[in-house]
Amino acid sequence: MNIIPKSIQDLVDELSKLPGVGSKTAQRLTFYLLRSSDNDINELGNSVLNLKKDIKICSTCCNFTDNDPCIICSSQNRDKGIICVVGEPLDVVAFEKTDFTGLYHVLGGVISPVEGVGPDDLYIKKLIDRIKKDKISEVILATNPNLEGETTALYLQKLIQPLGIKITRIARGLPVGGDLEYADEVTLTRSLEGRREY
Amino acid sequence: MNIIPKSIQDLVDELSKLPGVGSKTAQRLTFYLLRSSDNDINELGNSVLNLKKDIKICSTCCNFTDNDPCIICSSQNRDKGIICVVGEPLDVVAFEKTDFTGLYHVLGGVISPVEGVGPDDLYIKKLIDRIKKDKISEVILATNPNLEGETTALYLQKLIQPLGIKITRIARGLPVGGDLEYADEVTLTRSLEGRREY
Repeated sequence: MNIIPKSIQDLVDELSKLPGVGSKTAQRLTFYLLRSSDNDINELGNSVLNLKKDIKICSTCCNFTDNDPCIICSSQNRDKGIICVVGEPLDVVAFEKTDFTGLYHVLGGVISPVEGVGPDDLYIKKLIDRIKKDKISEVILATNPNLEGETTALYLQKLIQPLGIKITRIARGLPVGGDLEYADEVTLTRSLEGRREY
Repeated sequence: MNIIPKSIQDLVDELSKLPGVGSKTAQRLTFYLLRSSDNDINELGNSVLNLKKDIKICSTCCNFTDNDPCIICSSQNRDKGIICVVGEPLDVVAFEKTDFTGLYHVLGGVISPVEGVGPDDLYIKKLIDRIKKDKISEVILATNPNLEGETTALYLQKLIQPLGIKITRIARGLPVGGDLEYADEVTLTRSLEGRREY
């Protein structure tokens, strides 16, 4: 006997599909919403429905945007000579919390044979075209420091090298506030390799 | 400079309001949805909007339901002499995974002076009326074993006692699969007090 009313079970099922949301969490969220005001529920529901409405891909950097070119690509206050290459749009959000003032290029993923993602599935050709066309002085490869990210960075490095511009890779080492004791040996090795003089 | 498009930021803001969902999680969920199909997004959005549409409060047990009386109160296969009193609708879902075949009564919360919830804010009068009207042989007080839950159980016990029916409280002790070593002293004390002969 399913004692949960259909409209409640429907939302539990939909929320369970989200990453990191199990059935218990989905139930908890749903019953929280049941106690929320109609206004709050409508705002959440409409936000979901309107999410993609005005969203397109920036024709320059391939990030999500509501205006093409996006606010970063069209800004007059950015250093147009540096491109920071990242895997996902969320990585741009993360870098925007730093002092970085250059431009970005979103690959839309990373090379991953396991998940069947090859170079042609990513916005790599657009990146190369951009480097050739605009006056780019440096490309920062800022994919994640994991297997797929390193593979993608290496692939891009070989592809961009013939163009004769400066290519850098973000530093890998101990995270600030981290603890030597708990660091893995690969991270420690990288932190030694990447050491700098005072 | 807010680089996140408005429709994306709107959903991040709405999701951040949910319990246990911080801004990072809200961002991750939103960008996950941006990569989902329009169909998946519409199903989630409409599930939220339709959540409360057919939901009412059961006039007998005060649980959420789409039909009044609810599927449990109107069932012919339940033991109508036992009422299990719980705080929240989700507690009914939890007990329904056990072999319990009696009825429920949902209080709609627990007595909590800190949050300004008194006995009059709960469905307590309805419970008393129900006990007086129907032939109830036992009331199981199944509020949470925390301060508010125990207070509420004690309050109900004093209120129901004059009616001369059996009142029980769910057992408190070590959770099955638990570890003595990590149990707190209050739980251990309860497990001794509640010990039973083989």
